[in-house]
Amino acid sequence: MPTQSFQPPQRTLMGPGPSDVSARVLLAMAKPTIGHLDPAFVTMMESLKGLLQYAMQTKNTLTLPISAPGSAGMEACFVNLLEPGNKVIICENGVFGGRMKENALRCGAQPIMINDDWGRAVDPNKVEAALNEHPDAKALAFVQAETSTGALSDAQELCALAQKFGVLSIVDSVTALGGTQLQVDAWGIDACYSGSQKCLSCVPGLSPVSFSECAQAVIKGRSSKVQSWFLDMNLIMSYWGTGAKRAYHHTAPINSLYALHESLLMLQAEGLENAWARHSYHHQALRAGLEAMGLRFIVPAAERLPQLNSITVPEGVDEALVRKRLLEDYQLEIGAGLGPLAGKIWRIGLMGYSANKRNVLYCLNSLESVLIDLGVPLSGGAAVKAALAEYAG
Amino acid sequence: MPTQSFQPPQRTLMGPGPSDVSARVLLAMAKPTIGHLDPAFVTMMESLKGLLQYAMQTKNTLTLPISAPGSAGMEACFVNLLEPGNKVIICENGVFGGRMKENALRCGAQPIMINDDWGRAVDPNKVEAALNEHPDAKALAFVQAETSTGALSDAQELCALAQKFGVLSIVDSVTALGGTQLQVDAWGIDACYSGSQKCLSCVPGLSPVSFSECAQAVIKGRSSKVQSWFLDMNLIMSYWGTGAKRAYHHTAPINSLYALHESLLMLQAEGLENAWARHSYHHQALRAGLEAMGLRFIVPAAERLPQLNSITVPEGVDEALVRKRLLEDYQLEIGAGLGPLAGKIWRIGLMGYSANKRNVLYCLNSLESVLIDLGVPLSGGAAVKAALAEYAG
Repeated sequence: MPTQSFQPPQRTLMGPGPSDVSARVLLAMAKPTIGHLDPAFVTMMESLKGLLQYAMQTKNTLTLPISAPGSAGMEACFVNLLEPGNKVIICENGVFGGRMKENALRCGAQPIMINDDWGRAVDPNKVEAALNEHPDAKALAFVQAETSTGALSDAQELCALAQKFGVLSIVDSVTALGGTQLQVDAWGIDACYSGSQKCLSCVPGLSPVSFSECAQAVIKGRSSKVQSWFLDMNLIMSYWGTGAKRAYHHTAPINSLYALHESLLMLQAEGLENAWARHSYHHQALRAGLEAMGLRFIVPAAERLPQLNSITVPEGVDEALVRKRLLEDYQLEIGAGLGPLAGKIWRIGLMGYSANKRNVLYCLNSLESVLIDLGVPLSGGAAVKAALAEYAG
Repeated sequence: MPTQSFQPPQRTLMGPGPSDVSARVLLAMAKPTIGHLDPAFVTMMESLKGLLQYAMQTKNTLTLPISAPGSAGMEACFVNLLEPGNKVIICENGVFGGRMKENALRCGAQPIMINDDWGRAVDPNKVEAALNEHPDAKALAFVQAETSTGALSDAQELCALAQKFGVLSIVDSVTALGGTQLQVDAWGIDACYSGSQKCLSCVPGLSPVSFSECAQAVIKGRSSKVQSWFLDMNLIMSYWGTGAKRAYHHTAPINSLYALHESLLMLQAEGLENAWARHSYHHQALRAGLEAMGLRFIVPAAERLPQLNSITVPEGVDEALVRKRLLEDYQLEIGAGLGPLAGKIWRIGLMGYSANKRNVLYCLNSLESVLIDLGVPLSGGAAVKAALAEYAG
C-alpha cells in the first residue's frame, strides 16, 4: 500500500477538459471547510447563484450547481423533465447526443433521434421536420457545444423552434459556458446544464444547471416522482431555494463550491463578452499555427467552437504516440478522438484559463517538434510564426 | 453582484459532518489539476482504491469513491442492485432508513419496512422475523451508524442474518467509516457506502462504496438497465476497473480525489484500530463532561456511536439560540435534531480530525458557558473537570 502523498505533475491542460485551474481558484478551494447549513455558507450560496445567473445570462431562480459532474447535470435535466412514455426529440452529432438518448431511455421516455454527421452542427431543418412529425413531443434536446467534435450548434435558432412548437428545450452547454455566447433567457432555454472544468476553469465535479419558470412548473406538476432522489430538483430547491429556512437535502461539496465561486468572480471581473472574445482571439492564432503545419479542422469554419479544436491526424502518424510524447516530454495534455473519431483526430482545448497566448505558442511549438521528430516533413518554427502573424493582426 | 472572494470563518466543526478538515488534506486538494485519463492520475486512482480497501477492510475489486456525496452513494447501491418489483427489507430507525425507502420506491422496488425507535439500534429479532416472512426478499438494507440519532446497529449480526437467508446486504456506513469498526469482508457485506466528510475528515462531496463479488454478479446479470446512467456501476467499472485501458465515463472530481487520498493516507498511518480507539477515548471524556452538565444521551450506552453524541436539550432552553450563540461567539458548530427530534436534541460530532482533546474541552466549556448565560443552573468548569478526570482514567 502507498504511504506517500500524491504529487501530481504540473501539466498544461489543452485537452477537452479539465482546463488549467488558476492558483487563485485552487487556493480558494483550500480555505477552511464550514458546515453546509452555516449562515456564512448560505450567504456564499446566494452569491454563487447570482454569479451563475450572470454567467448563464438568466434570471431563473432555479440556477445552481448540481453536486456532481456534468453528466449528472445532464441526468438532472432528463429525470426531472421527462416521465415514462414522454417523447423527446434528441439531436445526435457526437458522443453527448448519444448519452442524451441513454438518459431518455433510462427514464422510460421515447427518444426520437435526429442524426447529423460528427463534426457538423445540428441541422435546424431536420429539427423542424421532426417537430412537425411529432406534435406530441414534450421536449427537444441538443448539444450546443459538442465536446467530442468541436462543433457549435445554433442554440438560439433551435430554441426558437422549440418555442414555436411549444416543446421544452434541454441544452447541453457543458463546453460552451464562459467560452461561447450562451443566453439562457434571451434564447428561451428551458433547461441548461454545464460543467465546472471547461471554460470556467474550476476544478471538475460540479454541474451548473438552470431551469426556466416553465420547466419548474413541469417539475412541480409531475404525475410521478423523479426517479433519482439525489437529483430531484423538488428536493434540491428546498436547500438552494430562497427563503431563510434551508432544508437539508445532502451535504454540499463545500470546498468545491468555494472554487466555483472564485472562478465565477474571475469571469465577472473579466466580463462575459470579453471572455468570449478572448476564446475566439486565441483560437484564431492556434488555427493559423495548426494550418501552417498542414493540419485540417474537421469542423467547417462557420460551425467551429473556438474552445475545442478538432484536427485530423496526419497520414501515417501514430496519434497515441504523439500524445504520449507531448505528455511525457512537454507536460502537455491534448485530447484523443472518441467513438468513431478515435485514432483519427486530436482535440485541442483552449478553455478558460488555458486560453492564453503562452499556451497557444507552447502547444504549437511542442506539437511541431514531436511531429518533426516522428518524421513528418515540417519546417520548425513555422507554426508559431503563423500564430504570431495572426496575433499581430 | 458580489465582487469579493468568499472568506469562510474558521469554525470548529462538531456537528454531524462535515468534520474539521486538516490543513494537510486542504493543501493536497490545492495541488495542480491534471486530466482524468492522465497516467499519473490513474496511478493515484489505484493507490486510492488500495487505501479504501484497507479502510473498509475488504478485498472487493469494486471499491471506489462515487463522484458525489453520500446520498448518491446510497442511490448507487439501490439503483444497481434492485430492479422493478424486487422486494427489499429496510430497517428504519432514523432519517436515513427513511431515505432508503424513498430510494427503493423510486427504483420501482417494494420496500418492506421494519421500524425501531429513533435513538435505538435495529432489532435483529424483527429483522429475522421479516426475513422469515418474506422468503422472496432480494436484499436487507440498514444503517450501521444512524447520523440522525447516534445509534450504532450490529452490522455483523444483521449481515449474518442476510447471509443465512440468502439475501444481499446493503449497509449505510456513512458515519461509521474510520470511526467505528467496519469489516466489509469479515461480516459479509454485499454493498456498503460511506461519505468523505465524516470520520475520514476529507472535504464533502465523495462517497466511497464497495460491492462484493456476489453484488457485482447481480449488477452484471440485471435484466433491465440501471435507471441512472451517472451511477451505473457497469459503466463506472470500466473507468475505475483494473486493466491498462480506462474508458472515459465522466470527468472525475480530480482535486477532491487528491484530498480523499491524503485523508486515507492519514488514516493508514494512524492505523484503523487506533482510529476507532481514539474516537471511543474522546467520546468517553465528552460523555463525562456532558453528563456533568446533566445532559442526557438519547441512545442507551451499549448502542451509542462514539462519533455522534445526541443529547436532549434541557427543559425550557431555546436550542436554536444555543447553537446560534455557539456559532457566533465561539465559532463552534454543533448539530440540531432532524425530523421528530428537531428542537429536542443536539448532535455533537467527534469525527475524524475533530475527535481530539482540544475540541472536547472547548466544546464542553463553550456549551457550559452559553447554558449558564441563558440561566441554566450549572457550576462553571464542572464539565471540563469531569472530562479531564475521565481522560486521567
